[in-house]
Amino acid sequence: MSPAPLRVAVLGASGYAGGELVRLLTAHPGIEIALLGGDASAGRSLGEVHPHLAHLPVGGRVLEAIPMDAGADRVDLAFLALPHGAAADRAPAMLDAGTRVIDLSGDHRLPAALYPEWYGFAQESAWLDKAVYGLPELFADAIVGATLVANPGCFPTPVVLGLAPLLSAGLIGGGPIVVDGKTGVSGAGRTATDTVTFAATDESVRPYRAPRHQHTPEMEHALKLATGVDVTVSFVPHLVPAVRGVLVTCSAPLVSDATTEALTDALTAAYASAPFVRVLPPGEMADTKRTRGSNGVELQAFADPRAGRAVVIGAIDNLVKGAAGQAIQNMNLMAGFDETAGLPTTAVYP
Amino acid sequence: MSPAPLRVAVLGASGYAGGELVRLLTAHPGIEIALLGGDASAGRSLGEVHPHLAHLPVGGRVLEAIPMDAGADRVDLAFLALPHGAAADRAPAMLDAGTRVIDLSGDHRLPAALYPEWYGFAQESAWLDKAVYGLPELFADAIVGATLVANPGCFPTPVVLGLAPLLSAGLIGGGPIVVDGKTGVSGAGRTATDTVTFAATDESVRPYRAPRHQHTPEMEHALKLATGVDVTVSFVPHLVPAVRGVLVTCSAPLVSDATTEALTDALTAAYASAPFVRVLPPGEMADTKRTRGSNGVELQAFADPRAGRAVVIGAIDNLVKGAAGQAIQNMNLMAGFDETAGLPTTAVYP
Amino acid sequence: MSPAPLRVAVLGASGYAGGELVRLLTAHPGIEIALLGGDASAGRSLGEVHPHLAHLPVGGRVLEAIPMDAGADRVDLAFLALPHGAAADRAPAMLDAGTRVIDLSGDHRLPAALYPEWYGFAQESAWLDKAVYGLPELFADAIVGATLVANPGCFPTPVVLGLAPLLSAGLIGGGPIVVDGKTGVSGAGRTATDTVTFAATDESVRPYRAPRHQHTPEMEHALKLATGVDVTVSFVPHLVPAVRGVLVTCSAPLVSDATTEALTDALTAAYASAPFVRVLPPGEMADTKRTRGSNGVELQAFADPRAGRAVVIGAIDNLVKGAAGQAIQNMNLMAGFDETAGLPTTAVYP
Amino acid sequence: MSPAPLRVAVLGASGYAGGELVRLLTAHPGIEIALLGGDASAGRSLGEVHPHLAHLPVGGRVLEAIPMDAGADRVDLAFLALPHGAAADRAPAMLDAGTRVIDLSGDHRLPAALYPEWYGFAQESAWLDKAVYGLPELFADAIVGATLVANPGCFPTPVVLGLAPLLSAGLIGGGPIVVDGKTGVSGAGRTATDTVTFAATDESVRPYRAPRHQHTPEMEHALKLATGVDVTVSFVPHLVPAVRGVLVTCSAPLVSDATTEALTDALTAAYASAPFVRVLPPGEMADTKRTRGSNGVELQAFADPRAGRAVVIGAIDNLVKGAAGQAIQNMNLMAGFDETAGLPTTAVYP
Repeated sequence: MSPAPLRVAVLGASGYAGGELVRLLTAHPGIEIALLGGDASAGRSLGEVHPHLAHLPVGGRVLEAIPMDAGADRVDLAFLALPHGAAADRAPAMLDAGTRVIDLSGDHRLPAALYPEWYGFAQESAWLDKAVYGLPELFADAIVGATLVANPGCFPTPVVLGLAPLLSAGLIGGGPIVVDGKTGVSGAGRTATDTVTFAATDESVRPYRAPRHQHTPEMEHALKLATGVDVTVSFVPHLVPAVRGVLVTCSAPLVSDATTEALTDALTAAYASAPFVRVLPPGEMADTKRTRGSNGVELQAFADPRAGRAVVIGAIDNLVKGAAGQAIQNMNLMAGFDETAGLPTTAVYP
Repeated sequence: MSPAPLRVAVLGASGYAGGELVRLLTAHPGIEIALLGGDASAGRSLGEVHPHLAHLPVGGRVLEAIPMDAGADRVDLAFLALPHGAAADRAPAMLDAGTRVIDLSGDHRLPAALYPEWYGFAQESAWLDKAVYGLPELFADAIVGATLVANPGCFPTPVVLGLAPLLSAGLIGGGPIVVDGKTGVSGAGRTATDTVTFAATDESVRPYRAPRHQHTPEMEHALKLATGVDVTVSFVPHLVPAVRGVLVTCSAPLVSDATTEALTDALTAAYASAPFVRVLPPGEMADTKRTRGSNGVELQAFADPRAGRAVVIGAIDNLVKGAAGQAIQNMNLMAGFDETAGLPTTAVYP
Repeated sequence: MSPAPLRVAVLGASGYAGGELVRLLTAHPGIEIALLGGDASAGRSLGEVHPHLAHLPVGGRVLEAIPMDAGADRVDLAFLALPHGAAADRAPAMLDAGTRVIDLSGDHRLPAALYPEWYGFAQESAWLDKAVYGLPELFADAIVGATLVANPGCFPTPVVLGLAPLLSAGLIGGGPIVVDGKTGVSGAGRTATDTVTFAATDESVRPYRAPRHQHTPEMEHALKLATGVDVTVSFVPHLVPAVRGVLVTCSAPLVSDATTEALTDALTAAYASAPFVRVLPPGEMADTKRTRGSNGVELQAFADPRAGRAVVIGAIDNLVKGAAGQAIQNMNLMAGFDETAGLPTTAVYP
Repeated sequence: MSPAPLRVAVLGASGYAGGELVRLLTAHPGIEIALLGGDASAGRSLGEVHPHLAHLPVGGRVLEAIPMDAGADRVDLAFLALPHGAAADRAPAMLDAGTRVIDLSGDHRLPAALYPEWYGFAQESAWLDKAVYGLPELFADAIVGATLVANPGCFPTPVVLGLAPLLSAGLIGGGPIVVDGKTGVSGAGRTATDTVTFAATDESVRPYRAPRHQHTPEMEHALKLATGVDVTVSFVPHLVPAVRGVLVTCSAPLVSDATTEALTDALTAAYASAPFVRVLPPGEMADTKRTRGSNGVELQAFADPRAGRAVVIGAIDNLVKGAAGQAIQNMNLMAGFDETAGLPTTAVYP
């Protein structure tokens, strides 16, 4: 007899991350979708807000107004795919009611003191200190037992995965590390704005929100957590004409005579048993397209000894490993499923 | 009575830069296209190799095998849009015959000693020392009288324009400067390869040829020429899913307490009379799309004092300001035309 | 002494057609932009609403609320780039005040009786009967002396140009003619909606508004005007992942044994002196990209005798020949300028 | 005890269809990949020819030269993803050796008499008459017991699915039926040619190979097979700037007073139990993007009574339902698996 399925809620189901959670969860063998919640979209069916999901059994389900307790009587675990700020407001009541929470927003990723400066609000929840940073390749032990997981941001995910082993191994220094990010426009969310129209985006490469993007302190904080090393990051994100995909190019001080091979070996060793991470051999180049639709990560590192820099490049699908897929990977750890359950490792290419 | 037109040759007319030269030159009031030359495409008409130019009066003209002397009896000035290496082979005979040359390849941009390492061949031409680096905003005086102009690379153009005034003003330090480049695939040339198919490029962001891209020493050399400051560059170029457009994001050490305003003011002052350069006010973000089809340059600078970095961003159309347009701008200076003759300043947007 | 420039107004300057009018008019030798008008954007500068035009001398000009008389004391001719319905409301007062008008909307293209069904409003203007359908290749004589020109729709432009000569020559029959249209999303206007985001549009091909698109009766009416033949059209438009470009594929009954050569010859003869129309020889295929940014039209025709059909294909840039460029071409005829003044014939390719 | 897995060969594994077969087969619960074969790519590993598959257990497998008998001693069923012509040459020996074959090329789809005209070679195989046309929604009974299945072309798949029920119901007439096809460039295969570069494809809409595309007689033949009605098709395919996706827009004579509702009802009834087909309610528009990466089909029909036409629109992913996915669906029927085994029904959207 198979165990009872884990009952999950997707709260904020109408956005891109919410839709991707449902797409992936419907292929998961151990869960049932017990609740779909939305704010502005409450009362509409899933198929109406995501026509590509209309044919699924869950397609006719109507989104409910988000219950204060996340539906604690019928839900074991809730995914919060809510806007920044809203998650901080809503999570405590859910957690107090006994529901485990995976928060896809930025509301539980940083020390409280950093919220006013980087997010524009004070985050005073008593639960903040109990949140576990949900990067499974680095913090699996803590995630397993966590009640509240802060799902990482799309840019920090490949940055922290790429830099942490090299910082720990003493192959690179802590700063300043220059991080250049490129993202497809789905990272800006689903709302139609002048910035994300096809006419504005096609044939356009644009920086945005630099140097004050809120993922900057998240990179610094998570790297400190993972390695103990103090790091300063200068981060410039860019929009490129793609729907999905994040590629980060990190330039860090190269310690003495570390070689491309040494950098690559350190990454390879760190992720030898990580099912989603692929470290590319020297000379091969990362490509976001090879992660599209999957939870995979490509990492690449090389030395630039002329300039005394190490370059580390990471590529992911921002909606999967950068959001919904990673959230499910965290759920798998928390609930005792296989870490890869329900998660594609192979891209839909080309 | 109007003066006799300048008789120009476009040698290597079948590539993207060659086609763009013809498109722009046909709108130029002071020249006549005296010769179209090609190697593999000799014997074919311009309209056959560039169907979008077939309707022009010049569309029926047949490409000739490239004459040794660039057709010195009927040509005053030759644009060389030939592959790296070929220009070095061919230019001396043309110059010796008295034809002025604007070389769009990299064959006359660097000191001789750097060619074996970065281009893979020895460049031993006696003409190399006489070549003038053709970045008109910084070297107009030398270009006016030049016999041989080395037209800059697409990445170095915005990098050098963006960094030189700040180095000269002492607002940033020389190194290492981290340069992250993003380019549309037309920068890879017109040859159909697996790398540049639509299927491989759409939804793909990929680094390439790092850290050994040949534009690296060109940036260092041109910045030294322009400012006297020794600079070390660590450069990583990327292909993004666009046809045209180069955006460079440069991170340099910020000197003491230079502010965003001070950086912006230095750029504004430097290019007050440059007809193609637009320095964006603090907070506005550069966009390659606003340069598409034009010879314009957008520059943006800001301080990231947390990390002690200055960030300078530049955007151009790689086929215009990064190749054919800049070559015509150089011709305008050499021949005494208005600097903007034949050159659009306004993008075809959206 | 050169004549005084024609003083023109661009009313509705904030949309894509308005921006394209300004881009092209600034390169026109015989006009001055006397007035820029907007509704919601009144009070903002042109450079604010169209940042790619900010560097132009006209970039700092502030959009005015649209005057009732189109500024008759300082304007000779007004371009109306207003939404459907708004032009019908505003044009009569302008015309009564003596301003010549080129209306880019659909408000003066059809007989009055068709407006309720196809546009959803009654068009009762006394000026409607005086409007001339502004397709210069077919109606130049009437346009020259017109006070009010109805600028054609983007889809009807290539459809009517492609079919009229074949209907007149008796090579094809009147119906039903099946028209399949493909357009880039700039045809949907500048407003950011869920339909035109990059995420919704990239990798998407979608029909829309069929079979009730308002260009259907315009095709029928204009073909009747041009040829005297009664035509019935079944029209299905589609959005494709492009910014610019309209391609129409028309399938008409083939009369007896008309050949591809006969169809092609009829088109070639009809447009022998039309500066913007290129008729492709048998076997060559039309391509919207070869018209991008220009006022050019590509036409192609072939017989499919197995099925008894003639196929006629036309390609344009919807914002130029399909809107702003054609409007300027009409102005050139009305004001006695060269028909091609200010209008590029060459695409920005690739 | 679970049954022994079906041993399959993918012959022609290096192309797009071959790669997609491997991607989908690795998620299939009842098969094992017993053989990967290639011609030019023999000797290279799967991961070399398809880097996005390199991380899979099968990624290190080396492609073998294609055995004459398809490896009959270790293979139960072979997928032939070979060029047109090559499959006809190779299939008979495989079939004679007892291997069941699913041929993704066009070599077994038509009556022998049509090959010289439409494919340019004589198809004289004795196996041709035994081939079953592999459109599972219409010919499942014959597919179950077939030895040789001709997997349909990408364009005919949605055309035949969309038209057959309406022809059978007498709601539309047989001709001429005008079919307008739009396809992403992956349909042109993986070879890098001037036609499929990003620079040539982005912002380009182009017809091709009309009116002689080889899918024309396939549509006519399959519709006759399915309905008994003689049909004449006039077909014009177009390339649009997308990687994946086929959308077909079919215009057929409308019989008497058939309504949109009647057309829709006929489709709905026909596919009530078809797991991959979604018939859209009146007013909803098909979208290729909602099929991307899945084996789904969207069908839409409406009447255009003004013109006496019925319009039927179908959308698929050309590499899945138009090639590899449909081939696996056929295999599922032939081998007794669930029809949907290994086949995603949900698109990767956006």
